[in-house]
Amino acid sequence: MEAIDKAQQYLKEFRAIFEPYFNRYLNGKIGELAKISDMGRLLAEKIFDFSVGGGKRIRATLVALGYQAGGGNKMEDIFAAAAAIELLHNFFLVHDDIIDLSDVRRARPTIHKMFEQWSSQILKGDIDRRHFCHSMAMLAGDLSCVVAIEALTSTNLPAERTVRAFQKLYTIGCDTVIGQGLDITLPFREEVSEEAVMQIYLLKTAKYTIDGPLHIGLLLSGADEGLLEDMSRYAIPVGIAFQIQDDILGVFGTEEELGKSITSDIKEGKQTLLTVAAPRTP
Amino acid sequence: MEAIDKAQQYLKEFRAIFEPYFNRYLNGKIGELAKISDMGRLLAEKIFDFSVGGGKRIRATLVALGYQAGGGNKMEDIFAAAAAIELLHNFFLVHDDIIDLSDVRRARPTIHKMFEQWSSQILKGDIDRRHFCHSMAMLAGDLSCVVAIEALTSTNLPAERTVRAFQKLYTIGCDTVIGQGLDITLPFREEVSEEAVMQIYLLKTAKYTIDGPLHIGLLLSGADEGLLEDMSRYAIPVGIAFQIQDDILGVFGTEEELGKSITSDIKEGKQTLLTVAAPRTP
Repeated sequence: MEAIDKAQQYLKEFRAIFEPYFNRYLNGKIGELAKISDMGRLLAEKIFDFSVGGGKRIRATLVALGYQAGGGNKMEDIFAAAAAIELLHNFFLVHDDIIDLSDVRRARPTIHKMFEQWSSQILKGDIDRRHFCHSMAMLAGDLSCVVAIEALTSTNLPAERTVRAFQKLYTIGCDTVIGQGLDITLPFREEVSEEAVMQIYLLKTAKYTIDGPLHIGLLLSGADEGLLEDMSRYAIPVGIAFQIQDDILGVFGTEEELGKSITSDIKEGKQTLLTVAAPRTP
Repeated sequence: MEAIDKAQQYLKEFRAIFEPYFNRYLNGKIGELAKISDMGRLLAEKIFDFSVGGGKRIRATLVALGYQAGGGNKMEDIFAAAAAIELLHNFFLVHDDIIDLSDVRRARPTIHKMFEQWSSQILKGDIDRRHFCHSMAMLAGDLSCVVAIEALTSTNLPAERTVRAFQKLYTIGCDTVIGQGLDITLPFREEVSEEAVMQIYLLKTAKYTIDGPLHIGLLLSGADEGLLEDMSRYAIPVGIAFQIQDDILGVFGTEEELGKSITSDIKEGKQTLLTVAAPRTP
């Protein structure tokens, strides 16, 4: 329990210093994008709404933790990279919410739901409103991805390390997209094995949520491959455990605990270790 | 006419050396992603199908041209950046085709159409097939974006220049997303001005198709801000002209000339300089 307390303390402390930075960063971006067009303001504000006041900042914190583990000590240098990982996360979340037709995320409306409200006030004419709002949300997600790129260039750390971090962003992105593709096709397959579910956990959680952010921090600290591999031996099992815990909360927890609709996994026929194991249990 | 001949010759010559490189690069990526999962292979092959054998490579060629204009002379160093711009383009095209519900692109089925065929063979059960295929195509587009990031790290050029190129990728991405947002909301606005249409041309074509790729090449050659600004004074008007020509072809050209469905602009009620000017013409 002491380790958990310590981890939660670190999370809380990092969040307290990161959150004001992230707010300033995003507000700056809204200003920049609003100069291009009102549409820039609209899309950026939607992302901003979605980014702040929600999210546990696990990934951002792990970037900082990896950076410190690799010997990095100027914490303000890592904030921009932590912001990049949160923005990349928004990119994937917004698209996931479209795919899953989710109405609630972080106890608030998802971005395509936000656009429904906006579109009913603004737009005239005959329109497939659902498709239109999905399209706008998809674009807002895409914007979050390109802003993540900007954030990662803004660390003031040596350019060589930044380029290595971009390479890691690529592998994180591939793992996540592939994991998501597996996830959404799984319910329609004839047979679902525990192995298939575990592969999704490896890609979508262990690598994306835990291992990837730690590696970004390590790379930006100038750490070598050996340290990255050592970290993975710890990070991957932790990530798998994290996902199993999330599944348990997703069935037995409350909406407040999870900050998202708790029935969605079962309603959508999503396969988790729980549902795969369930029929075998007497 | 001599200038046009010269430009077409450059385009043709660059294409001839770039295309084999791009093929090898994408095949390498399919191999890499297939190692992660069959889903990696599936998504990568769809992007690969979409990327090769179609596209004029205007953006890739302009990256090379910018690089040479800035004094870069090792052409093989710029191929990876040219690939990055083409992959970023695929990212936006695939999402655009979902938004526009387009069935044909580059005289072939669009990615969500490709997934329709695939899904009918593979997937069982009750399923909103249109939404599912849009979801898969959105993910394939996302994958193309993260592969673009990898490509831009692979130039062997100095890391400082690469980081500057990533900053430019960010501005190109913002311009394009905002331009696309304006484009898809325009038909539902009460009044459409020439100015509004011209802003879309500026963002979606002049900056995205012409100015942005030239700047990526210039930045990777080590050029300074002055040269970038000089180039923009040429590139922006050329981009606007390019878009107007594309609109004319979109109404008066043939499907072969354009490589995409020619009636889609009018059918979707898209606003171009032609449609905005049309009611005023006696």
